[in-house]
Amino acid sequence: MGIALGDNSYGKTGNHLFKVLRSTDQHEVRDYRVDVELTGDYAAAHIDGANADVMATDTMRNTVYAIAAQHEFDAPERYGMQMVDYLLTQPRVTGATVRVVEQRWARIVVDGRPHEHSFTKAAGGKHTATVAGSASGRSVTSGIVDLDVLKTTNSGWAGFLEGGYRTLRDTDDRILATSITATWTYGASEAGEPDYAKVWDGVHDRIASTFTDHFSPSAQNTIYRMGRAVLEQFAEIDRISFELPNKHHISYDLEPFGLENDKQIFWVTVEPFGLIKATVQRD
Amino acid sequence: MGIALGDNSYGKTGNHLFKVLRSTDQHEVRDYRVDVELTGDYAAAHIDGANADVMATDTMRNTVYAIAAQHEFDAPERYGMQMVDYLLTQPRVTGATVRVVEQRWARIVVDGRPHEHSFTKAAGGKHTATVAGSASGRSVTSGIVDLDVLKTTNSGWAGFLEGGYRTLRDTDDRILATSITATWTYGASEAGEPDYAKVWDGVHDRIASTFTDHFSPSAQNTIYRMGRAVLEQFAEIDRISFELPNKHHISYDLEPFGLENDKQIFWVTVEPFGLIKATVQRD
Amino acid sequence: MGIALGDNSYGKTGNHLFKVLRSTDQHEVRDYRVDVELTGDYAAAHIDGANADVMATDTMRNTVYAIAAQHEFDAPERYGMQMVDYLLTQPRVTGATVRVVEQRWARIVVDGRPHEHSFTKAAGGKHTATVAGSASGRSVTSGIVDLDVLKTTNSGWAGFLEGGYRTLRDTDDRILATSITATWTYGASEAGEPDYAKVWDGVHDRIASTFTDHFSPSAQNTIYRMGRAVLEQFAEIDRISFELPNKHHISYDLEPFGLENDKQIFWVTVEPFGLIKATVQRD
Amino acid sequence: MGIALGDNSYGKTGNHLFKVLRSTDQHEVRDYRVDVELTGDYAAAHIDGANADVMATDTMRNTVYAIAAQHEFDAPERYGMQMVDYLLTQPRVTGATVRVVEQRWARIVVDGRPHEHSFTKAAGGKHTATVAGSASGRSVTSGIVDLDVLKTTNSGWAGFLEGGYRTLRDTDDRILATSITATWTYGASEAGEPDYAKVWDGVHDRIASTFTDHFSPSAQNTIYRMGRAVLEQFAEIDRISFELPNKHHISYDLEPFGLENDKQIFWVTVEPFGLIKATVQRD
Repeated sequence: MGIALGDNSYGKTGNHLFKVLRSTDQHEVRDYRVDVELTGDYAAAHIDGANADVMATDTMRNTVYAIAAQHEFDAPERYGMQMVDYLLTQPRVTGATVRVVEQRWARIVVDGRPHEHSFTKAAGGKHTATVAGSASGRSVTSGIVDLDVLKTTNSGWAGFLEGGYRTLRDTDDRILATSITATWTYGASEAGEPDYAKVWDGVHDRIASTFTDHFSPSAQNTIYRMGRAVLEQFAEIDRISFELPNKHHISYDLEPFGLENDKQIFWVTVEPFGLIKATVQRD
Repeated sequence: MGIALGDNSYGKTGNHLFKVLRSTDQHEVRDYRVDVELTGDYAAAHIDGANADVMATDTMRNTVYAIAAQHEFDAPERYGMQMVDYLLTQPRVTGATVRVVEQRWARIVVDGRPHEHSFTKAAGGKHTATVAGSASGRSVTSGIVDLDVLKTTNSGWAGFLEGGYRTLRDTDDRILATSITATWTYGASEAGEPDYAKVWDGVHDRIASTFTDHFSPSAQNTIYRMGRAVLEQFAEIDRISFELPNKHHISYDLEPFGLENDKQIFWVTVEPFGLIKATVQRD
Repeated sequence: MGIALGDNSYGKTGNHLFKVLRSTDQHEVRDYRVDVELTGDYAAAHIDGANADVMATDTMRNTVYAIAAQHEFDAPERYGMQMVDYLLTQPRVTGATVRVVEQRWARIVVDGRPHEHSFTKAAGGKHTATVAGSASGRSVTSGIVDLDVLKTTNSGWAGFLEGGYRTLRDTDDRILATSITATWTYGASEAGEPDYAKVWDGVHDRIASTFTDHFSPSAQNTIYRMGRAVLEQFAEIDRISFELPNKHHISYDLEPFGLENDKQIFWVTVEPFGLIKATVQRD
Repeated sequence: MGIALGDNSYGKTGNHLFKVLRSTDQHEVRDYRVDVELTGDYAAAHIDGANADVMATDTMRNTVYAIAAQHEFDAPERYGMQMVDYLLTQPRVTGATVRVVEQRWARIVVDGRPHEHSFTKAAGGKHTATVAGSASGRSVTSGIVDLDVLKTTNSGWAGFLEGGYRTLRDTDDRILATSITATWTYGASEAGEPDYAKVWDGVHDRIASTFTDHFSPSAQNTIYRMGRAVLEQFAEIDRISFELPNKHHISYDLEPFGLENDKQIFWVTVEPFGLIKATVQRD
């Protein structure tokens, strides 16, 4: 029995690209953290140390900026596509994946007017995009990370599994706090490429508003409702996946001090945390 | 020559307090990370292991929540004051310092209406407060951290010191990006205790708007302008200190590829970074 | 076309378990960070909010400690197996995955003698283990993370792909610095369960010594050599995967100051970094 | 009443310097993270935007590497002194502070022999040094950070303050776990400059061994004992300060499951944590 090279890939991680659009005095910015990853036939590089067809990760870094200079893009999905299209033209590359996390910036408002060229970090999470390409096509995944939300009521956790090592009691009124990560993919469409920026804003709003609109019996059910709401509104999306850490807010025990605590005083734990993952998709 | 105990203090760091105000359906939240630190005559504890008058840090933790349950407060400064007042009543304590970092939450907006009990993390930095107390009085320091801002033009860095190990060239148009930390203290006033929440909002706005309103020849000058603007508007503030890391956005060299880069494509560095600190105060 | 629940799982992340073995005065410690993740038929929980058969993640947390109390284990793989065996007995659970990261502690040496009950964090990386189980069996993956190593010579990067956006020059003498992550799996064996603790020590040594023993023309080739060395020595291992970030040490340009820099003065970058991944396996 | 500039300083933070000593095949490395901070008369820069005498922080960065190239140093204290000596020669500078955190590297051992040019991160904490200088002289502070230690017995916490919000019970056998930060300064000496590298090793050993050698009634008493032991051994040190976070290991409550837990099963909390600070000094 011999020894062989198995799956392999390589790339450049953490390229921080910042582009300013200054065609008018009303500047716009694109603030992207870009990861590049390639696959291909690199057996000789691994086994024999033959580098001839291996693109340096430093070259990938240059590529991140050179492609950004030559293209216009209004969403990280489009930039990712431009990157992947270029990378697939290079020798020995059979697959290219580009992941982007966009830090969104909002204009500073001065005297009620959004400023032309001054910005502050936007609330509401970051826009993510992953574009993967090969000879057989391209796939685009859009997403949100760090959408931090909580509700102070209209959430419970009751009637769950008895026995085993259970000690937690039922509650019909707890704080639900989480940091939402969502990723979604698009179905084939006659309408052509989605308007990624517009869809992102819409999905963001549907997730946030659905989070508020029901009694939550569990993170699981709230995830399902959020996913269903997105799929119902956006025909171009065919599946959406969520990861919700449960940022536990636990009622602080003030009984030893003769103090009442009627869902007012909580301590927030860091670890461990519940982590709930689910996908909602079209049948 | 003997060996003696010198300065000493101890406390509990990272108490995460969350309080819900639910007197109406329009809930409010207070999300504070609280550090407690005490000084006093603890020589016997250190030298002899005599614990009799030493408050356990676990007791401090209980105190964080018990005090929050018994008091109303609309700003971390007021909560800090309530904590310090209590701590100074305890045996052997001669000094108490309470530091609070407030995570601010904004209501989720659904169909144009702020929701009653659902929140998302607010943009624009955190509210900090430090209250220190002893037999001789109380001091209150208010502040902002993590106020991330940038401007894409109207900033330069030119005419600085020649010689030595200088290689950087002058520029009259660069990106100025930073994460503002500011702390301020209050002068004696006949008007009584400041309205800390209102002052904070006002200082926040003055800092952000001043950041936008001038050509910045240096972070130093922008700090001075921001400090001056705050002192001019808020008579109750007697000094304000700033710390600004310079989040360098460096023009990416695209010349090797025959591409133009007229202040459009930048890479953002993590480390090292310039760090500029200054205080502006009344004479 | 309808909407349905897709893949889903949930669990408790970041349970920090610490066990002391004190049957003799020579104490031993097990310091594990444990993540638990379950899959099963949880459609009713998601769609209908029906919690009856859903184990709370708080119950999982209790389980982490209760199982540790009832079993002996000398390696995180064995503990993970005990956890998985228990979890699969629970209602509705069809799959259980337990991930452990072990912080290794070394005895403090006093006057040349390892102390009985005093420890300091060990160098050389952490021991990881992932055990996944279902009705069809168990799989065990062992690993190392945070094995930080560097060599100051006997490494180069030359002859790589020309053209495109390449600017980097060849070098036949660079610093190679990385933080090794490795994971490996075991083949079917008549010898029974591996001695995980002993294998881990051996793999650790083979990786570290192979890192030193050759001229490295690329991270890729060094990975392959390390993998091959492990497979050659440990018949029970059938594949090993590596992830190596390239912690770039770049010669600092001192020419403007008339100073020589013959591979002596480097600056170390944080981001971006090359990231090289490969698996070496038996044919 | 006017408005004026108060205290101010500026510098470059997070310069990562790596120097290889290759005069023989037995290479040595210096891995320093360097922060530079200057004070001086910079009023015109702040108030008027006059940069003429302001050294760019980019120039400081160059200085970090240029000074390292021109000097030999076997400890971060000496490098810090060389930096400060240079910086004080620059226009308008009246004070210079250089802080260094040294990542220590140990040789990889292959077949019982330390390798010539291959290294792995050393255990036992990092070496810190701060050198501050002005026209009136130089001060050197040495230190250790991240010295992570624990003892599984011979530590208690009992007899502490009753009343108030106390709920914690006495214990005469607990786990004491911490991450030691220590800093020390030197007295005037006829013996000349200390051998900083040798002193550091010695202080490190005294701290670690004292940590093991007594029943600890409190972190406070253990700090005092460690400080006293250092001062007794090292006549050149005139004071030493400690900061010890108490990494709480809390007995997990297994009573609900009918399981015994005789100081065997603990959970480790992240926050909040006790933080104990004290200085031990010569009278």
